[in-house]
Amino acid sequence: MYDGSVQDLIDELGRLPGIGPKSAQRIAFHILESESEDMLRLADAIRTVKEKVTLCTICFNVSEHETCSICRDEKRDQALLCVVEESQDVMAIERTRTYRGRYHVLGGAINPIGGIGPDQLHIRELLTRLQDATITEVIIATDPNLEGEATATYLSRMLTTTGITVTRLASGLPVGGDLEYADEVTLGRAFEGRRAL
Amino acid sequence: MYDGSVQDLIDELGRLPGIGPKSAQRIAFHILESESEDMLRLADAIRTVKEKVTLCTICFNVSEHETCSICRDEKRDQALLCVVEESQDVMAIERTRTYRGRYHVLGGAINPIGGIGPDQLHIRELLTRLQDATITEVIIATDPNLEGEATATYLSRMLTTTGITVTRLASGLPVGGDLEYADEVTLGRAFEGRRAL
Repeated sequence: MYDGSVQDLIDELGRLPGIGPKSAQRIAFHILESESEDMLRLADAIRTVKEKVTLCTICFNVSEHETCSICRDEKRDQALLCVVEESQDVMAIERTRTYRGRYHVLGGAINPIGGIGPDQLHIRELLTRLQDATITEVIIATDPNLEGEATATYLSRMLTTTGITVTRLASGLPVGGDLEYADEVTLGRAFEGRRAL
Repeated sequence: MYDGSVQDLIDELGRLPGIGPKSAQRIAFHILESESEDMLRLADAIRTVKEKVTLCTICFNVSEHETCSICRDEKRDQALLCVVEESQDVMAIERTRTYRGRYHVLGGAINPIGGIGPDQLHIRELLTRLQDATITEVIIATDPNLEGEATATYLSRMLTTTGITVTRLASGLPVGGDLEYADEVTLGRAFEGRRAL
């Protein structure tokens, strides 16, 4: 409905996740009204990411190089390996500053309905990495939902014979949350996982 | 926190209106995971808009040419001129398919607190257009808020001496709305503007 290129931009923006037609229009007009320099920087940022960013050949985290900055960092604890679903999970864990080991990004979780089995995930590569005897503990940090739990169970069964310690992140009440509003599964888990004070 | 170019993209996306840090990250990873072709099309759409789109020299609507498609359309009723704040308003009115005249985009509304007076808007150009005797009615379609009403009042006073009919869009209950939830100002306007059935 707008002149060609404005409508093209609205259409392209509307394909991004979480951006409806109204937001797409608002952002398009923001782009129209902003300094050209800033907006060309956005266009270049998109282009650069598509041209430069690939997956780390060791852990499958996003990376601009063959291996990511975490895998290249020799000060990281080589004995710990944290298994996550997505690159975003790596960043969430990094923000806590409590973990200093390395990661393995599966690229998703087991989801039979969605057609994702162990072969679609980077599980074979995980097993190859675990042949390195320096890894003594695998921390499974898949999401605390149905698919994440199924993946955790699958991995822990697969690793029982290896002698490597396999742990899972604790489930329980979120810090700062309200017990009264916790769902019953979470509250149940918090009871099961209670600790001595 | 991510490798340079991913973080750059998240930062640039986070500057867009209505996109917080979480959305920026989600969109960035969507861009990473999508087909290169689609995402380069988005980058190009941004670049094209900044390079090609300007304001129509007649009505100040966004346009890829010196004059916009509405001003160029000779089938439009030349006697009617609808005055709006922004290009987005033109599009909203076009979607109704009830108006077949032309437009004049002010580029905002009078807002003394924000430092926007009549001189910052395309009001001088409006007066020049109105010297064309074919225009017999000016429909003021500024927003029904404080700034829009002030602008409407300013314009209607300015045009009293010209002999051109000046009208304002009706205020009242939104269609499909619920009388019970209408604010008192809107409901008051609906009473004032009541019509014989």
